Amino acid sequence: MELPQVLVLGPPSIFPYLESQFPNRFFFLKPWLYNLPLTQFLTSYAQSTQALLIRGGGSTQLTSAIIDCLPSLKLVVTSSVGVDHLDLPELRRRGVAIANAGNLFSEDAADMAVGLLIDVLRKVSAGDRFVRQGLWSKKGDFPPGLKLSGKRIGIVGLGKIGSEVAKRLEGFGCKVSYNSRTKKSMAPYSYYSNVYELAANTEALIICCALTKETYRLINKEVMQALGKDGVIVNVGRGLIIDEKEMIRCLIQGEIGGAGLDVFENEPNVPEELFNLDNVVLSPHNAVMTYESKVELSKLVVNNLEAFFSNTPLVSPVVD
Amino acid sequence: MELPQVLVLGPPSIFPYLESQFPNRFFFLKPWLYNLPLTQFLTSYAQSTQALLIRGGGSTQLTSAIIDCLPSLKLVVTSSVGVDHLDLPELRRRGVAIANAGNLFSEDAADMAVGLLIDVLRKVSAGDRFVRQGLWSKKGDFPPGLKLSGKRIGIVGLGKIGSEVAKRLEGFGCKVSYNSRTKKSMAPYSYYSNVYELAANTEALIICCALTKETYRLINKEVMQALGKDGVIVNVGRGLIIDEKEMIRCLIQGEIGGAGLDVFENEPNVPEELFNLDNVVLSPHNAVMTYESKVELSKLVVNNLEAFFSNTPLVSPVVD
Repeated sequence: MELPQVLVLGPPSIFPYLESQFPNRFFFLKPWLYNLPLTQFLTSYAQSTQALLIRGGGSTQLTSAIIDCLPSLKLVVTSSVGVDHLDLPELRRRGVAIANAGNLFSEDAADMAVGLLIDVLRKVSAGDRFVRQGLWSKKGDFPPGLKLSGKRIGIVGLGKIGSEVAKRLEGFGCKVSYNSRTKKSMAPYSYYSNVYELAANTEALIICCALTKETYRLINKEVMQALGKDGVIVNVGRGLIIDEKEMIRCLIQGEIGGAGLDVFENEPNVPEELFNLDNVVLSPHNAVMTYESKVELSKLVVNNLEAFFSNTPLVSPVVD
Repeated sequence: MELPQVLVLGPPSIFPYLESQFPNRFFFLKPWLYNLPLTQFLTSYAQSTQALLIRGGGSTQLTSAIIDCLPSLKLVVTSSVGVDHLDLPELRRRGVAIANAGNLFSEDAADMAVGLLIDVLRKVSAGDRFVRQGLWSKKGDFPPGLKLSGKRIGIVGLGKIGSEVAKRLEGFGCKVSYNSRTKKSMAPYSYYSNVYELAANTEALIICCALTKETYRLINKEVMQALGKDGVIVNVGRGLIIDEKEMIRCLIQGEIGGAGLDVFENEPNVPEELFNLDNVVLSPHNAVMTYESKVELSKLVVNNLEAFFSNTPLVSPVVD
């Protein structure tokens, strides 16, 4: 019996694990093994491919030019929560179904957001560098950071991840506020209808929203200036939600206090100006990935692919 | 009018701030400015000194040899919560009063303990090094860490700091257990009467207890082996609560998973074997210090000194 064919783009970071743990279920088409331009590979080998597994956003984009090379495409499974790297209108127009990582990552992303916030405020990574460089015994006391307990924290996007961040911050005695498209009637936090007001009334912003036309460069110069010189930004959303150039200028000139960044505009390339700053913590888009979630995500991807090939409903479909 | 004299040993990290913010209240005796052995300085200049301000434990000890040089001593104010660096029996015998930092640091210490735990599990500092060294664009995906949400966490010492840690970890959905001298009837967490059992039943240990004869090297080889190869240790107590040599061996040989250390046996000297390990986070005894707590602690020290010199009760006395 022939195995169902799955084209893999990216590939997702879980792919080697998935491939070894779930053998003999699919035939994976791997363009990166061929010395061909992608469109040429697809035209030659993927004309009957119905299912595509793609890495999350950042460096990999599913453009209409790629979709045009896949006439039989009926399913896209992305290993991410976000779908900003997919040309949604084009996929919809062609009736292609989409599955994503569902809520699998919410806890991990929230844990990391809080970890980055503590790290920036309390200078954990900077202190670690100080000790490893042998400076503690030479230079004496390391300068203190800022307190987290009791701080006013603003969450941008109170979806599943944002809500998990809020729950965690309550344990630290923080005063949580949020901004989102609409007020959530069940959320016990102050709502600000615009992010500028949120920044003006809080000491740190945690970016938890999806990248959309509305959130593209939402965190701009005015928002950062409202946040102020001791203010901290944590981003576990997408790099393009922040005006990155402006943020770097604000960090260097002390117009904001610091930043904990898991995502960047042009991953995996991180602007080198950030490498020498002690008030930033740089994370290689790792917020949503733990060993445990890698295992769970691999299962979820396989379950979505098997559902598709057996004509049963997707486990974690993306619906409008 | 002559200002009341205060001998300063250490000095505490807050001392420069305290001195500049509260001028003309005390005459500070600063032995480190004199080119004399300490005992000779004290014998020459501190014979009438009644009040002593001392840095917290780690590198500074108030031994009976020093106390012997201070015949007029009536008050010791330490800038720490812990009093393990003070010769308590000798001070008690002489009727010397002691004031410490009270509960001032509990929130900051708990925030840092959780920050170190997230950092070790999720490899935050290691990821930051990876990005800063330009390895993300060269080597690709950074290996995932371990999940915090839902983990079984053991707290060693459920005092003020331990309780604040527990409260925070509840927000992460962790299952909290603890070990302490006695079961706390009000605490909603599982109690283990010995730390070995606690380690055997949890995935991380957070050391929050004071250093005493009973807790000296409490975390020994057997406890670490019970914790196991994915287990993590966080220490915001004192370095001597862990068998440091054995811990380093366990870290290098993979017998425990990782460690987040704010305190060490011989501060500010940190064993160099730790500098090259990616599964440890090293913090320069900074858990209890933030800008905000520096301000509050300076006020508290001044209030204790002024209470003493005006014969009113100490604000934060250490009582048996």
